Amino acid sequence: MFKRGGSSAAHRHYGGGMLSRITKDTRLCISLSARPSNIGTRFHNYLYDELGLDFVYKAFAPTDIEGAIAGIRGLGIRGAGVSMPFKEAVLPLVDVLHDSARAIESVNTIVNDDGALHAYNTDYQAVTDLLVAHDVDSSLPVTIIGSGGMAKAVTAALRHSGFTDGVVVARNERTGRPLARKYGYEWHADAGAASPGLLVNATPVGMAGAPESDRLPVPEEVVAAASVVFDVVAVPAETPLVRFARSRNIPVITGDEVIALQAALQFALYTGVTPTPDQVRRASEYSRS
Amino acid sequence: MFKRGGSSAAHRHYGGGMLSRITKDTRLCISLSARPSNIGTRFHNYLYDELGLDFVYKAFAPTDIEGAIAGIRGLGIRGAGVSMPFKEAVLPLVDVLHDSARAIESVNTIVNDDGALHAYNTDYQAVTDLLVAHDVDSSLPVTIIGSGGMAKAVTAALRHSGFTDGVVVARNERTGRPLARKYGYEWHADAGAASPGLLVNATPVGMAGAPESDRLPVPEEVVAAASVVFDVVAVPAETPLVRFARSRNIPVITGDEVIALQAALQFALYTGVTPTPDQVRRASEYSRS
Repeated sequence: MFKRGGSSAAHRHYGGGMLSRITKDTRLCISLSARPSNIGTRFHNYLYDELGLDFVYKAFAPTDIEGAIAGIRGLGIRGAGVSMPFKEAVLPLVDVLHDSARAIESVNTIVNDDGALHAYNTDYQAVTDLLVAHDVDSSLPVTIIGSGGMAKAVTAALRHSGFTDGVVVARNERTGRPLARKYGYEWHADAGAASPGLLVNATPVGMAGAPESDRLPVPEEVVAAASVVFDVVAVPAETPLVRFARSRNIPVITGDEVIALQAALQFALYTGVTPTPDQVRRASEYSRS
Repeated sequence: MFKRGGSSAAHRHYGGGMLSRITKDTRLCISLSARPSNIGTRFHNYLYDELGLDFVYKAFAPTDIEGAIAGIRGLGIRGAGVSMPFKEAVLPLVDVLHDSARAIESVNTIVNDDGALHAYNTDYQAVTDLLVAHDVDSSLPVTIIGSGGMAKAVTAALRHSGFTDGVVVARNERTGRPLARKYGYEWHADAGAASPGLLVNATPVGMAGAPESDRLPVPEEVVAAASVVFDVVAVPAETPLVRFARSRNIPVITGDEVIALQAALQFALYTGVTPTPDQVRRASEYSRS
């Protein structure tokens, strides 16, 4: 059982073969998630090629998170992106919890620095940085829709960025009320009475493939009353919420920006190299193609 | 700190970029050794490209062999080559010890089959297969020079292939005598009295870079009296021993053949695909270039 078809081109050009630049010294970065997509693998490998960095990236779906972390240590794997459902499970398995991970007790990035595992949350960091980059006034009232993992990152980032007047809107009281209380915000079961100021969607409503992909997360009049709209949904870049806000000339921060910035921050933590915004944009486009 | 030089080619051609075919589904094979060379990484990646197999290979120098094996399980790494000093340390860490590894209590190949770690020794297997391929008469007396790891593999393979009349020649009595005894062979401290028949060099004498790279492992008259010469030294392919034997028209089995066959067996265990001898030859040449 062997194949020879299509081998001549690889042979003729070898030295420039697909995997030819991987050596014993090439550093491996990985991701850990229950259901990996190809996005991270394509994003990071694109930039390694583009920047000529001696790294290679591959997604894994670990069967045993403790074994996977032991393997990062034992093999000397350089870095690991951490996704659902491992973001909290890895907390006791790392050595150094940096502020971004400690702030929300959730890890999305592990860096192996000569055997010491450093944990970060670049989603939290990206949201914090984007509020500054878009010059959002921290005296605005904030309305956060949702109470899941991303809502936690956003709520913590807002509070730590000086937004003291906030409301968490979540049908799920069990998760919504404690999230609001933790940061001194109010909890509401619906957005009816919201005076939005900065309106943040941290639910999957509007996401491609989600059941409510064609909907707004709150009624039009609530969006229309907002001063700034921040949608964490990244796919599509132009969600119904983003489109509606733009149609009313309301300033917008998109989930696309969050995901690109958090990936660039992660890339810089692994490699020490910060890609340019243009490189990040091309890598993002490639990673979704 | 970022580089852009030389990036345009990678960008223009991307989709055919160096790492572009690695996806979340690409299977990773690795090697574990204290001082990895590039040979395995280049050999396997060459053949993955040549055969269009969705695999990638990278050498590791683990700091903690138990952690490394936990990582193979936890991450679902497909296979691992095992080199010094881990060949015996992994014995209690695997699930299924196949005959080739059990025969010499030494593992050089681990295959992860849906979470069950299978252990093999393809050096032992390659020596066994080459004795058959070269049609070596098992009634010949055998003289094995050396008592290290490779001598163990060779001695076991010879005995299990029906060679009952053997001598282990090793200055080190502490390792030489028990090795000989284990297989019902004699031990001699030197080759003076050897009646070689099949003469096997299982020492590094004659290896490029070794202190005795330009020497024969035994006196010329001992080589000259041999019916068949088998040198396990793989680099250079034409060792002083091989050259001398060829000059006397003595049939020869080379270390180059052992290393190529053991690598092909390992490759087949990982991928289910057996490369042709020609492919193995080209991959070997590439891996040493």
